[in-house]
Formats: sequence, structure tokens, C-alpha cells
Amino acid sequence: MTRIYDRVALIGLGLIAGSMAHAMRRAGLAGEIVGTARSTETRETARKIGLCDRVVDTAAEAVGDADLVVLCVPVGVMGAVAREVAPHLKPGATVTDVGSVKRDVIAEVAPHLPEGVHFVPGHPLAGTEHSGPTSGFAELFDNRYVLLTPDEGTDRAAIDGLRRLWEGCGANVEEMDADHHDLVLAVTSHTPHLIAYTMVGVADDLRRVTDSEVIKYSAAGFRDFTRIAASDPTMWRDVFLSNKDATLEILGRFTEELFALQRAIRTGDGEHLHAYFTRTRAIRRGIIEAGQDTDAPDFGRVPVARRREDAAE
Amino acid sequence: MTRIYDRVALIGLGLIAGSMAHAMRRAGLAGEIVGTARSTETRETARKIGLCDRVVDTAAEAVGDADLVVLCVPVGVMGAVAREVAPHLKPGATVTDVGSVKRDVIAEVAPHLPEGVHFVPGHPLAGTEHSGPTSGFAELFDNRYVLLTPDEGTDRAAIDGLRRLWEGCGANVEEMDADHHDLVLAVTSHTPHLIAYTMVGVADDLRRVTDSEVIKYSAAGFRDFTRIAASDPTMWRDVFLSNKDATLEILGRFTEELFALQRAIRTGDGEHLHAYFTRTRAIRRGIIEAGQDTDAPDFGRVPVARRREDAAE
Repeated sequence: MTRIYDRVALIGLGLIAGSMAHAMRRAGLAGEIVGTARSTETRETARKIGLCDRVVDTAAEAVGDADLVVLCVPVGVMGAVAREVAPHLKPGATVTDVGSVKRDVIAEVAPHLPEGVHFVPGHPLAGTEHSGPTSGFAELFDNRYVLLTPDEGTDRAAIDGLRRLWEGCGANVEEMDADHHDLVLAVTSHTPHLIAYTMVGVADDLRRVTDSEVIKYSAAGFRDFTRIAASDPTMWRDVFLSNKDATLEILGRFTEELFALQRAIRTGDGEHLHAYFTRTRAIRRGIIEAGQDTDAPDFGRVPVARRREDAAE
Repeated sequence: MTRIYDRVALIGLGLIAGSMAHAMRRAGLAGEIVGTARSTETRETARKIGLCDRVVDTAAEAVGDADLVVLCVPVGVMGAVAREVAPHLKPGATVTDVGSVKRDVIAEVAPHLPEGVHFVPGHPLAGTEHSGPTSGFAELFDNRYVLLTPDEGTDRAAIDGLRRLWEGCGANVEEMDADHHDLVLAVTSHTPHLIAYTMVGVADDLRRVTDSEVIKYSAAGFRDFTRIAASDPTMWRDVFLSNKDATLEILGRFTEELFALQRAIRTGDGEHLHAYFTRTRAIRRGIIEAGQDTDAPDFGRVPVARRREDAAE
């Protein structure tokens, strides 16, 4: 048990904040975890399941005397929340966030923070399609990456404290420039999400293929898109609006390549298709080797028939 | 143990044929399983691991006296294989295939088959990104769908025998028209695969984001695309070339929707994005309820840290 902060305040109690609470407790990283959320229902649920040591009604109250404040709200309201809590922050406290976009969040949050408070923007690259106060679990960050994007000149001790917290939650921590973060994430996360949403929308729209067919026959590839496309709509709306430039750039590259493959299909250019499909296998191998996925057949999904048998035993 | 065929011949010994062999044995569905593959290496591996009761050197030899012949080769060579085995088929035998495209396979295969042999085209909607004779496992088809697309007038007893075989392998069997199959699969499988291949190719191409960054930070959405994009290149080249019309139609619809979302990002139309992202959640719920995926956090992937602990216990 290595306590890193005496009091941690979680603003917003969704999947990430909930998982942080579980992970911090697992490793004894915080003396006290105080949480709050805008919705009364969320606060009540969090109280009922004992998600935090204390759940309070306002963000202003939550940050009082906190050594670390974690903004776990959608990117679009980070600025408003920062303005609300700023007057109540303890001098010397560290403020971080978990937003999927960094340049825009820095622009919205940093101006509100008083002198003597350390802002270390962060982004844990972990998630599921579930949201809400009951969706968190302690293992979410195990072997996942957390990217920190502090400005040059940020207090080194504040950065290192936050590093240790995330490492204690099981994560690997790296630092990078906020703009580079936004480009990398446009490639590895934002554009894939937009594409998955689009594909699922197309399937839902098509009159000649029924929804029940799409659902029953989804194991042939489609279902992997639906998981991504079930992510929180508000979070993702904000991501695209606030990482507009990088997302549009990658989308432009994507459609260019897609049109080339489409043309190869139309003209029957099998060589182009085969060469393209061969090259993409290497990246997959890299991901397995880096421990960022399992190569278990069928993703480690247990077939339902077997699950039933197990339950019956 | 319910024997359905005295002798089953598997032509081609990859993931699907291998899994069929395991699944048929699990339920005692075949008296003898004979297999063959074009590559000497594949045949030797299959012999070494005892994948079939007998592995023979040619397709012509394999089909001799077989009651069921399963063509498990890429869609592009189905016609050539059918021509090769046709003179050696036993009268009254059933021939089926496992190709991902049905109209084109029917056009290539049916003309070669002699009178008195029953052709029942089939497509098991199951797979992993692995290929080759060692990649199969008995549970692959459990609770997955197999679509049969026989012409009107096909012998009912032949269709029913094949149905029972697949049901004995754990699958749900449905029948539909070949053209409808190709459209449904263009939506649930072919277009998603093309899109995934494209996205992984874009990531690999981008100079300013390194491959190692793409790999390390893949858990944020990208890795789900890489699994799909690691599928067998030859199989997928053939799929796109032989299901050209339906794939191009769905791709057209996809780019139309993608451009609408791209425009919403560019113009900052958050309402359009939010409405689109909300609607796609319902399909996901349907897939979970239909038992075609698990809603376990993180897809049921066990974090590496926990796997290590388990191993240490």
C-alpha cells in the first residue's frame, strides 16, 4: 500500500472515474476518495455501491482540500467545470483530466486555473462500451497506456506524482506533446470510431436487410464495429468537435485509400487487393506481441453454449 | 453419437475444414473423415496432428466414395476444384462449400457437377484471424449461424442431411436465396472487412505517427480493426472480386453517410453527430441479447497482468 495523495477528488462518476476509484483502492494509492457527479441519480447510485469514500453534491465541495483533482467529464464541459472548481482548489494541488482530446482541453481548462495549481493533462487509453457509475472495474488500466501532455515548465514533482498514481493503477505512462497526442489518437481511436458508427448506421438504414439479419449474422465481422459504435454518444460528439482538424485529416487519407481499393474491386485488380491485405497483418502481430490484445480464437469470447454448460456444472 | 454421413471429404484444410473435423468428431457425425490440401506442407501437418482419419494427396482421391464433399478452398478456385473432383463423385453424394460468397460460387461450381449429385451451397458465419491446418477448434461454430442457399428443386433429403450435420457441429442453420445472402454479407462482413483493412493501411502509411505508437496505443479502438484486417488475404481478395456488385453498393452507401458525418464535424453540427451515435447503440444491445457477442468488459479479454498472476498461482 503506497499512498500517493491524501485526498483525490473525482469530478464525474462514469466508467473511467469508477475504474480509477477501484484501482486506487486496490493499491491503496489515496487516503480518501471524494466523488461528485452532476446527476442526482448518478450520485445516489455511487453512494449506494460505495464507489467513493464520500460522494458530495457539488464539484466545488469535492475539490476542497484535495491534493489531486481528476476531471472525468465529457471534453465539451471541461472548461465549464474548471471554471466552477477553480476558486476552491487547494494551493499546490494537481489538476488532471481524462479527456480523449488534449489541445482543446488545455485551451479550455488552463486559463481558469489559479497560480500555484499544477495542471497535468492526461488520457488513459482504456475503455469499454459501457458507461455510468456501475461500469468501472479495477483492472481496466492494467497494461494499458496513459498519455500525459503537460506543457514545458510544468512542475516535475506534480507530473511524477500523477505518473506514480497511474502506474499504481496498473498502467504504463508516457509523456508527449498535446498536438502529437491528438494526431495519434485521430489514427488509433477517433477515426476508427467514426467509421464504426458510420458502418453500423448504414446497416441499420438498409431496408432490404433487416435489423434481425444484421444482428443474427453479425459474427462475420460486423459485431466488432458495433461494440465501438455503442460508446457514449456525448463523449464522442465532443471528441470529434474538439479534435476536428486531426480527424478530418485522417478521414481524408482514409477515403483516398478506400477509393483506391474500391477502384481495384471495380476493375478486378486482385493483385492490388492482395498486396494491401497482406501488409496489414504485420501490425496485428505487433499488437499481440505488445500485450495490447489476445490472440485467443474468437477474441477469448466464450461461446454461449459453453457458458451454459459451465453454469450447469 | 449420431452418424449422419459414412464418409466426409474435406477439400482444403484451413480454419473452417479443421474446425469442422474437430466438431464432427466431438459429436460423432461422420464415419470417416478424409482430407486433402493442395500444399504438401499442409497435408503433412494435418497428418502429424491427426486432423482427419486419412489425409490423401489429391482431391480426386479424397472424394471417392464420400457421401458428403465439403469444398473449403478460397472462392476464386472453387470452380477449378469442382471440375477436378466431378468425375470422381459418388452418385447421390452431397457437395457443399463454405465460401463467403454464394451467387458466384454457384455459377462456378454447379455446371461441373454430374446429374444425381446434390449441390447445397453453404456458408458458416464464423471465423478467427488465424488460418492453416492447426487453427481449427471444435467450438468455432457453437451458436453461430450457417446459411444454406440451395436452388429451388434441390433434393430436400440432401439439404436436411447437411442441416443436421451443421446443427451437430453446434450451429444454427437458416436457408435463404443466394443473392440475398450476398447482400446481407456485404453489410455484415465484406464491407466491414474492407473498411478495417483500409484503416489499418492508413495507420501503417502515416509518417508522422510511428508503427510503434499505433501498436502501443491500439487499445483505444484501433485494435478491433486490426484483428479483422489480419484475416487471410487470398480469401478476402476473392470475396471482393466475386461479390463485387453488392460490396460496391454498400460502399457507396457507406461513403455517403461518412461524408454527411464528416460535414457535421467540419460545420460543428453536434446535434447530427449525437443523434447518429445514439441510434447505433440499439443494434449492439440486440447482438448481445442474441448471444452473438459477450458484453463482458473489454470483450472478455483478460488483462496481461492478471493472466500472469493466474499463471503464477
